[in-house]
Amino acid sequence: MRTEREPRQERSRATRARLLEAAVACLAERGAPGTTVGAVAERAGVSRGAAQHHFQTREDLFVAAFDSMADGLIEGLRRLMEDLPEGPGRVEAMVVLLFDVFSGTEFQAALQLWTGAASDPDLHPRVVPLEQRVGREAHRTAVEVLGADESVPGVRETVQATLDLARGLGLANLLTDDTARRHRIARQWAVMLGRELGRGPDA
Amino acid sequence: MRTEREPRQERSRATRARLLEAAVACLAERGAPGTTVGAVAERAGVSRGAAQHHFQTREDLFVAAFDSMADGLIEGLRRLMEDLPEGPGRVEAMVVLLFDVFSGTEFQAALQLWTGAASDPDLHPRVVPLEQRVGREAHRTAVEVLGADESVPGVRETVQATLDLARGLGLANLLTDDTARRHRIARQWAVMLGRELGRGPDA
Repeated sequence: MRTEREPRQERSRATRARLLEAAVACLAERGAPGTTVGAVAERAGVSRGAAQHHFQTREDLFVAAFDSMADGLIEGLRRLMEDLPEGPGRVEAMVVLLFDVFSGTEFQAALQLWTGAASDPDLHPRVVPLEQRVGREAHRTAVEVLGADESVPGVRETVQATLDLARGLGLANLLTDDTARRHRIARQWAVMLGRELGRGPDA
Repeated sequence: MRTEREPRQERSRATRARLLEAAVACLAERGAPGTTVGAVAERAGVSRGAAQHHFQTREDLFVAAFDSMADGLIEGLRRLMEDLPEGPGRVEAMVVLLFDVFSGTEFQAALQLWTGAASDPDLHPRVVPLEQRVGREAHRTAVEVLGADESVPGVRETVQATLDLARGLGLANLLTDDTARRHRIARQWAVMLGRELGRGPDA
């Protein structure tokens, strides 16, 4: 039994992952109104029936896609920690990468879901708790990445500002490529952040 | 002739203003896909024919609404300057008001148009130049409001970061009321900004 069930479960997991990946791409490209279970199934190369086996409604698909985007963002943030050089330029490298993560496809899909939820009463109550969870996790990861001591007055708000700035820069990258300007702002932000966290930008 | 034409022109201007106001409210509430010339005419209490006399297409209406939102945002920023107290707490009062302006209905409508344009090839090329114009004007106004000297290295990027942070905070206010958190961040940002511009937060 076991040997037969496992490949089937694996195939099911792979199908689900393909659908979520297609949902994120579809949201980023066509927005929430253009993202239906049917459109996502087609993009994923999965039959509509198989897609509906995984996600009964559009809202179910959105919620799962948001979770998957959030995981992508958080994973991106965690990767920062591992790959960053110690010593000179660490804070700057960290800020540049953090801002770049929030300017990628996952965040653009999340933006579409966010603004979609603002105008969709069915979606709104389902997106709010996800947004809060992702906000908390992104904050916790940023505190860890930056090695910030939140018991120092102002440090918690500085970390929050870093993430809100990252979201604002993600928005600025939605219609045109804003990379050059974003990197200039990241360099300046690294100087201010390093000073606020009690370290130089190269600490 | 003159006396007859003027009231008609005035009526026409008033109708146009009502339509734009309704378009901003409709965008903020229903998003770009839910904002049609018909829906806006109905909300404004204007006949569909009269609405179409002013705006032939949805895109024309959006462009004019975006212009009107931008004027609302810039006007809000300029009002900051006039009403702010001199002396202690000026920078903090400025930042709080700036962030509040970007968390209002106009910015939420602009957000809907932004994300709508990302997934609408007809809208995209028309929104990009508007976004750039508004970005430039908001920047110029912020420099003026803050009394920032952009010849000092880093100051230009600090002003840009202030506006990008304002946009990120506006996004955070889209689905839930984020006012308390935003004001805590504004107080901390005022400290950092005052230091960066070579003044205390109370300067």
